[in-house]
Amino acid sequence: MSTEKKVYDVAIVGCGPAGLSAAVNAKARNLDFIILGSEFCSPKMYKAPEINNYLGFFEVSGEELRQAFLKHVKAMEIKYKREKVDNIFNQGQYYQLISRENIFKANSLVLGVGVSNEKYLKGEERLLGRGVSYCATCDAPLYREKNVAVIAYTEEGIEEANYLTEIAKNVYFIPEFDINSSSVLEAEIIEDKPIAILGDNLVTGVKLENREIDVDGAFIYREVTPPEKLLPGLNIIEKHIEVDENMATNLDGVFAAGDCTGQPYQLGKAVGQGQIAALSAGSYVYQKKKEE
Amino acid sequence: MSTEKKVYDVAIVGCGPAGLSAAVNAKARNLDFIILGSEFCSPKMYKAPEINNYLGFFEVSGEELRQAFLKHVKAMEIKYKREKVDNIFNQGQYYQLISRENIFKANSLVLGVGVSNEKYLKGEERLLGRGVSYCATCDAPLYREKNVAVIAYTEEGIEEANYLTEIAKNVYFIPEFDINSSSVLEAEIIEDKPIAILGDNLVTGVKLENREIDVDGAFIYREVTPPEKLLPGLNIIEKHIEVDENMATNLDGVFAAGDCTGQPYQLGKAVGQGQIAALSAGSYVYQKKKEE
Repeated sequence: MSTEKKVYDVAIVGCGPAGLSAAVNAKARNLDFIILGSEFCSPKMYKAPEINNYLGFFEVSGEELRQAFLKHVKAMEIKYKREKVDNIFNQGQYYQLISRENIFKANSLVLGVGVSNEKYLKGEERLLGRGVSYCATCDAPLYREKNVAVIAYTEEGIEEANYLTEIAKNVYFIPEFDINSSSVLEAEIIEDKPIAILGDNLVTGVKLENREIDVDGAFIYREVTPPEKLLPGLNIIEKHIEVDENMATNLDGVFAAGDCTGQPYQLGKAVGQGQIAALSAGSYVYQKKKEE
Repeated sequence: MSTEKKVYDVAIVGCGPAGLSAAVNAKARNLDFIILGSEFCSPKMYKAPEINNYLGFFEVSGEELRQAFLKHVKAMEIKYKREKVDNIFNQGQYYQLISRENIFKANSLVLGVGVSNEKYLKGEERLLGRGVSYCATCDAPLYREKNVAVIAYTEEGIEEANYLTEIAKNVYFIPEFDINSSSVLEAEIIEDKPIAILGDNLVTGVKLENREIDVDGAFIYREVTPPEKLLPGLNIIEKHIEVDENMATNLDGVFAAGDCTGQPYQLGKAVGQGQIAALSAGSYVYQKKKEE
């Protein structure tokens, strides 16, 4: 884990069309920014066999469009890190973004984190911070010599589980995706379907379809971390981040764009909102510097 | 002047990035629509020497981007007419769009008409409908054997003036652009700068920098017709059409996108809003048909 000392003007979280559009616009405006994205930028879009409704491209595959986008970003020499942000904290003077390997700081944020169709597990929301976590980097030390479950809807969970095995006593790994059995994994793999997180005040176990396991902590990895879990305090309306016409959220200096702000879940809309969000973040930073 | 009998699902007005994005999305949704654009689609954008902030295109000129957009529209076999809409009327059951040559009907509208930086002339707003007009097709018959002025900020005014000479007694043509003197024009050309439209209850004249002329009507042609003049009843906030997050205006079935809805005046934003507006128009039409 390394912490960069510098505080960026803007950190863009997410590398789907909203995040990449924010990036090319932040660059055009000469902002000092970074873009952080997981390995799984916008899988829904990039796996699309054919896209015809993004103006300027006709009969392209999602993958071809992704290549065009990445070429654009590369040509502009944009600082792009393949790291999934697991948690963001408001430190008063700036925001702190935590990925598995690094901590970044920024005066403002553009969230282009997409939207998840998965439902919470029973008990998950109630026990968040009481044994439920989305960030091993943040919370693993709490489980030294204790037992934890890792419920993974994406491959990202594998590395998180491996990291937890260095600290916790027992790690139960519950993969909800096609796992390659050759993945080096020091945790005990349980092939079963998670139903609920158990516990009154603190997590005591995980209920699976065919059994229950006793644990003190449950780490959950989805393609998309629900935004209110990523950054506590964000106003959410029916699982979407509430934004105004400038893409500003309720939190000072935090802007959002793309599917995470609501329907329609469409590429052109995400690109347009990413642009607006980057320009709004730029104005915010400019204003903040002037006031200092 | 010909009137099409059919009523389109959607009429898209404007052929800048907002209108064209609405068109490719309306096509993708299989809507029965038409797009109407003047000769001067988005001149600000298309004349740009270099554009770098529309995701997927790097170091392209405005003209290259325009070619890419038109290629996309052509490939989708979109019904695209180069006709500037001068006036729109709400006929209750549908909207009627009037261009110089045709009348079109549609159940819903997407307005991507851009924004004008030009200011109104003194007296212009007060005397609208009392001698001031933006539509010779609509109002020329009122000036049979009368005198009119045509104040033209774009070449479009030439044909309008020629048409008026067939009906009015005298037509004074006041071009506010570089006019090619060989343009066949049967009106009297006055090279002077318009200052104000004169008249108490009805237009009585036009005040120019160096003289005044007596007229009964003043036809004014700008690159962009102010939207509240194009479609009476639209809610406007500081010269922009008021829209909600679905790009719906205050008028039933009327949506708007791009610069005409407000700042930032940016390409990506226009494309995104054009997409949303087309999808919203599609939902509106679907709902309307279901209720019939």
